[in-house]
Order: sequence, then structure tokens, then C-alpha cells
Amino acid sequence: VARASRTEEGLIERLAAVFARDGAPGGALLGIGDDAAVLAASDARLVWTVDTSVEGVHFERRWLSWLDVGARSFHAAVSDVAAMGARPRSALSSLILPADFPERALVELVRGQALASRELRCPVVGGNLSRGKPLSVTTTVLGSVDRPLTRAGARANDVLWLVGDVGLAAAGLALLRRRSPVKSLDRASRNAVAAALGAWRRPQARVREARRLAGRARAAIDVSDGLGRDAGHLAERSGVRIVIEEPRLRAALRPELLSVCELLRRDALSLALGGGEDYALLLTARPRVRLPGAQRIGHVEKGEGVVLVQPNGSRVNIAATGFDHFKARKRTLPR
Amino acid sequence: VARASRTEEGLIERLAAVFARDGAPGGALLGIGDDAAVLAASDARLVWTVDTSVEGVHFERRWLSWLDVGARSFHAAVSDVAAMGARPRSALSSLILPADFPERALVELVRGQALASRELRCPVVGGNLSRGKPLSVTTTVLGSVDRPLTRAGARANDVLWLVGDVGLAAAGLALLRRRSPVKSLDRASRNAVAAALGAWRRPQARVREARRLAGRARAAIDVSDGLGRDAGHLAERSGVRIVIEEPRLRAALRPELLSVCELLRRDALSLALGGGEDYALLLTARPRVRLPGAQRIGHVEKGEGVVLVQPNGSRVNIAATGFDHFKARKRTLPR
Repeated sequence: VARASRTEEGLIERLAAVFARDGAPGGALLGIGDDAAVLAASDARLVWTVDTSVEGVHFERRWLSWLDVGARSFHAAVSDVAAMGARPRSALSSLILPADFPERALVELVRGQALASRELRCPVVGGNLSRGKPLSVTTTVLGSVDRPLTRAGARANDVLWLVGDVGLAAAGLALLRRRSPVKSLDRASRNAVAAALGAWRRPQARVREARRLAGRARAAIDVSDGLGRDAGHLAERSGVRIVIEEPRLRAALRPELLSVCELLRRDALSLALGGGEDYALLLTARPRVRLPGAQRIGHVEKGEGVVLVQPNGSRVNIAATGFDHFKARKRTLPR
Repeated sequence: VARASRTEEGLIERLAAVFARDGAPGGALLGIGDDAAVLAASDARLVWTVDTSVEGVHFERRWLSWLDVGARSFHAAVSDVAAMGARPRSALSSLILPADFPERALVELVRGQALASRELRCPVVGGNLSRGKPLSVTTTVLGSVDRPLTRAGARANDVLWLVGDVGLAAAGLALLRRRSPVKSLDRASRNAVAAALGAWRRPQARVREARRLAGRARAAIDVSDGLGRDAGHLAERSGVRIVIEEPRLRAALRPELLSVCELLRRDALSLALGGGEDYALLLTARPRVRLPGAQRIGHVEKGEGVVLVQPNGSRVNIAATGFDHFKARKRTLPR
């Protein structure tokens, strides 16, 4: 929206008003309306990332309100900054919109971005509008941090910790993908379904938790592509083996996930290991360091790859087991 | 590419290697491969912007090589940072790629980004790959500057200056859009055609010129949407009237533009006022300040809007004259 010239000025002004009213305050010395936004100097290190959400690839319109599309894409982008232990400072939004996209829907989408920006205290200070199909939302986030928490800091004997849920968003997505609705549910099941749908539609970037734990943890990654796969990235970048202990992981799963898995006849562990988009955080810390609010789900060893230790003690190389979602990803790259 | 998990790791590694080999060196404490890139603290103000180039909207594949697509989109994004008088520091690249997009073409596109990043000394430190159609390239650029040069600084009695060409890229685009090729040209015409095509295919962000002039100028904008329209943005943000003097503007036009306009039977002034994408810079400075390397094309008055003063002294309100391209833009918003 810094590039006002790319579109009708009146529209940009209306969108800027949405960010002014519903978004986080402050953030830029010069915001929407010039060639670029201007930010104050920073005496901390800068962390920045970009993430894109494409209609038909990352979501279908019938699964989400436009408010959800805006809020969800914003949290997903900020999650990368959270995973560095950083405080988000500001964001740019670049939208590609079909020519026939109604302005009312656009305002809803932008309102979702603004609400997320307020929740996360990360003002939107500029962006860009382009015409095109399908709709996509690209969010760039700049954050600051004194000591970034990278994927490369895990060491043998560290404990593996999880903040937030895994599998619940994947269960929500599975519900949305079903052709037939789940019928005649009791109240507990209805609540579980609502929790799963909510987890997929409105994930929360774990900024506060990550900032609180940044001084205690040694490594972190956000779980956007599935616990197994993201643990693999942590293992590779750190040059270690990540060991997930199945009983501990099962104990960390939400009861709502188990309820929905019963309805769907899906395996909860498979969804937990293969499903992403809850935007949980996976961290490691030295053996005696506790991470309050996090759940212990495994440990780190010398070696490589990701191993699941089953209740009977046998070890499964997760990269080789081929959980559904995992395999699908391998086939359809780039996603 | 910071978000390796969104695609095949091997592909990300190959693309990272292209940036390492062909791109600008340095830039990040931590680059491609973690949740986010980490940059050193900055004691200057930060300038940041995002720009998107969509296939079928901003370009057609048959008009450009993939190298051109990469280089062109990168220069276009950096141009916004240049227009603030800032030094580009680093960039993020977010690509949406059709599922059937050949890897060879992707490497060429990324090589174009890398070459531009080297020309502009602006390393690519991260990004994102998504699947989707049509192809789009979103480039986020972070720069630094002590005193940003905004659109809001123009004052009555300032002189209006132009750095770079206007109209030549629009002439190149008109050549590309012709159904029938221009036949049996003499050498001068062939050179003019090549210059126009080159101006559209490989525009140059005016980083060095803008940095050199930043201390002397009071306001600046990059001409991406047409001189008339971008002058309008300058006028509006500064609360002044921009006056373009036709004889001075005509004197600033490249002979190649006049040659191509003869071939195309188009009016050079119309292309100069209505055509964008040369990424020239429009600046204003106090009356006695000279801007070396820039061409004087008008002045600033009290009032509003943009006025063209014709050789006979009559004044035309440019917003009302409706040059072709201008009108098309007004109709097809958001572009």
C-alpha cells in the first residue's frame, strides 16, 4: 500500500483507514502513501521473513471467511519471526486480487490482517495491490531481537519441547475437506469439531511464549509443515538427531484432537506428526532447563534425522514411515 | 527461501547457490535456511517496500526471458527504495510458481534476481516458494537512510527535475504488443527499437543517482505509473501544483523514443506523460539548487494537480486530458 500508484488511490485510503482503526498503532515514521515506509533505527538485530497464502493452494474460499483469510495469513507470517525469539515490529502486505473481487470482501480481508496486527502488536506500514488470479496474500514481517533463536542451536542431550498444539489444525482441515458433513453430534463432539476448525482457521503465532522462552531455549522452529518434517529441519540445521517419544507426544495431544480423530476415523498420532499449520513451536533446551508452558516430547541425540520411539521401545525413522500428509508433500513440491 | 519447509529442500539449496554465486555478497548474519533472516542492527532509519510482478498482468512470458523477469521485478522493487534516497540493504523474494513450471526456467528467473541484486548491491537473504498460477514474483526490499526523501517535500517555486528516461519503456511495450512485426528497418531504427525494448525489459533502479542527489533534492518519487500520474502523487502528498513545461520535457526525451514513435505512429509526448516502467526519478529542489545528471522539466506552484504548459503558453490539466495509457489505468484499477 506504500505503492499507492498501483491502484485506485481511494481504495488505498480506505484500506489504510482500516489499518488505522483496527490494526496495531505506531510502527513507522512514515507509513502508507509514499514510495516506501520509513522505520526508526534499530539497536537490536533485525529479523525478517515473508510468507504467502494462495487461494486454491493454501486455502479454499468456502473454508474461511475473508476475515479469517487475512488473520490467518498474518499469523502464519509472524510465526516465523516468533520462532526466532523476536518481537515483530511491523509488516508489509502485498495482495494479488482477481479483477472481480468485491471491495466488501477486500475490506473484510484487510480487517482480518488489521485484527491480527493488533493482537500481535505488529502494525502494517505499507504494501502493494496487484490484479491477478488466484487471490494471494504475501506478508512480510520485520522483527527485532538481541539473540536470535535459530534452527541450528540444538545439541545432543538437549530436551525437546513443544509449545502449542499439533495435529488439531490438520484435523480441522480434514473436516473441511470431507464431502459429507459429520452428522448428529453430541455436545462434546461439536465442541471438538469447533476447536479443530478454529485451530485451522485462526492459528495463533506464539510470539509471547517464544519471547518468554528465548533466553532458556537453544533452538527453535515453528511447526508449519508438520511436526515430523519440521523436526527434520531442526535436525539437519543443527547436525543432530531429534527423538520424539511417542507416549510423551500422545500425552501432549489435545482431547479435542482425539475426539475429532474418532469421528474422522483417522490416527491422531499421524495427524500430529504429519499435520502442520497449528504454528506450534518446537524448541530444544539444555537437560536441566525447564521451559514453563511447554510440553516435553522428546530429546536430542548425536546422529541425524528424526526418530519416533514407540511405547514398546522400538524406533521408527519418521522420514521413512511416510505419513499421509508427509508423502503428499513430497510429491507435490513446491507446494 | 527462509521458509525452506514450503518446498523441496534440494530446490531451495540450488536456488540459494545461485544467489551465492551470482548475487550481491553479504547482507545477513543469517540468510537462507532458517525461519527468518537475521540482519545486523542499523543506526540509520530503515526504509522498506514490497512490489509484485504478476504474469499476464505486468508481463507476458513471450515478451521476456526468465532472466529478464527476475531482473526486471527486482529493479522495480528497489526503485521504491531509491526514490527515498536510501541505500538498499537486502531483499526477500517470494515466488508463486505454476506446478508445471520447469526448474530450468526457475533457475534462470532466480539468476536474473541474483544479477540485479549484484548490480544494486542488495543481497537476497531469504524468501518463500509457493505453488500457484499464474506465476508471480514479490520482492521485499529493506534499505537504510539518514534523511528519507519523501513525496511530501515539494514546495512552491521548487524546480522539477527528471533523472532517467520517460516513455521509452512504454514504447518498448507498445512494440511488444503489436501483432505484426516492424519490417525492413534501417540501422538507426533497429537501434531505437532495441533501446525501447531494452528499456521495458531491463529497467534500472536509479539508486546511485538518487543517493547522490538526496542531499540536494526536497522531494522524490519514482515514475512507475507514468510521469503525469506520478507527478499527481507528488502534488497531492506535497499539497502543491506540479507544472511540466512541454518544451523542456520534449528536450529531455531520447531520440530513440522519437524514432520508435514514428514507426508506431504514436505521439512521443503522450507516451512520455502516460507511460511508466522506465523507473525514472522525478525530484524537486529549491530554485537555485542544481541537480547534476538530472534534467529540468518544470516547476512547482501553489495549487493542486498537474499542469502541462504547451509551447504557446496554454495550460492543460493533465489529469483531465486522458492520455491513452492514463485512461486505461483509470479503468482497470486495481492494476
